[in-house]
Amino acid sequence: MSPMPERSIIGNTLSQLTYGLYIVSSRDGEKLNGQIVNSVFQVTAEPPKVAISLHKNNLTHSYVGKSRIFSVSVLSQDTPMIDIGLFGFKCGRDVNKFAKIAHKFSDSCPIVTENALSVFACKVVSSLDIGTHTLFIGEVYDAETFKEGVPLTYEYYKIVKKGRTQKNATTYTEPKGV
Amino acid sequence: MSPMPERSIIGNTLSQLTYGLYIVSSRDGEKLNGQIVNSVFQVTAEPPKVAISLHKNNLTHSYVGKSRIFSVSVLSQDTPMIDIGLFGFKCGRDVNKFAKIAHKFSDSCPIVTENALSVFACKVVSSLDIGTHTLFIGEVYDAETFKEGVPLTYEYYKIVKKGRTQKNATTYTEPKGV
Repeated sequence: MSPMPERSIIGNTLSQLTYGLYIVSSRDGEKLNGQIVNSVFQVTAEPPKVAISLHKNNLTHSYVGKSRIFSVSVLSQDTPMIDIGLFGFKCGRDVNKFAKIAHKFSDSCPIVTENALSVFACKVVSSLDIGTHTLFIGEVYDAETFKEGVPLTYEYYKIVKKGRTQKNATTYTEPKGV
Repeated sequence: MSPMPERSIIGNTLSQLTYGLYIVSSRDGEKLNGQIVNSVFQVTAEPPKVAISLHKNNLTHSYVGKSRIFSVSVLSQDTPMIDIGLFGFKCGRDVNKFAKIAHKFSDSCPIVTENALSVFACKVVSSLDIGTHTLFIGEVYDAETFKEGVPLTYEYYKIVKKGRTQKNATTYTEPKGV
């Protein structure tokens, strides 16, 4: 192992980590927003808590920081690319992502139900500044499973659906030759 | 959605999150140890950082806390169950897990190379107490990919390999009727 590998070698290695693909939603007063996130993971069992990593430039980051609530929608493998694109590549400052997408609320927390196998809602109990992103730790206070099915994975999105990675993603790497 | 779902409903919902399965290793002086972890996630791209969630009762938690270094081995899908059992269900207080398993070092950080598609080593840059577990944030300082292959996922381990979940795992749920 070289002591200082090129950034591309680190990127290739980290690309072997396994992720799902989710929509994280939150609100700021009457405004709702959500975004695609791959870094959602359970971090304690008792009580059940999850961690999410959100880029500081993203509108959803601002909403979660203010409202201290967020939901996670576990997407089905057959989620249409147009819906992933809406939540992954459009900005909530320009478009109301919730205008034409099925959703509900738990208390005041917005939850995208369209294309979701299951959903859960969290209250933020702590957070950690990790540079470009913030890790928000949420305790799960509500959960519902709609149907059995195959959850969408990040690998399936990239390999089968030929999906791109948004520049604020935790796993973003510069395209070669650009 | 009910306002206070049963813990089993939350558990069922969270079981739809996607994970890989990894060995996280560290050291305390001359003593080496490692354990199976599913909660390993890249949390920032620039610089590349990962988060891991370790139970406070686990020996590896103590080693990472002291040495502030850890490595991650991305396991191949064909990793033998006996090797997963050694790192997942044996305690480093009772057995030297590194005695018969191929490994190397980056600086002083031990790295399990047996069954690994790729490995990387991290320096802890921050941590967060989240109750039963600690989230350690590590900046990647070394990385190597050994071969192409299919990474072991937590789902494959549970469904195909019929693997159990260790009681200190972030995703542990009480077996029914026990």
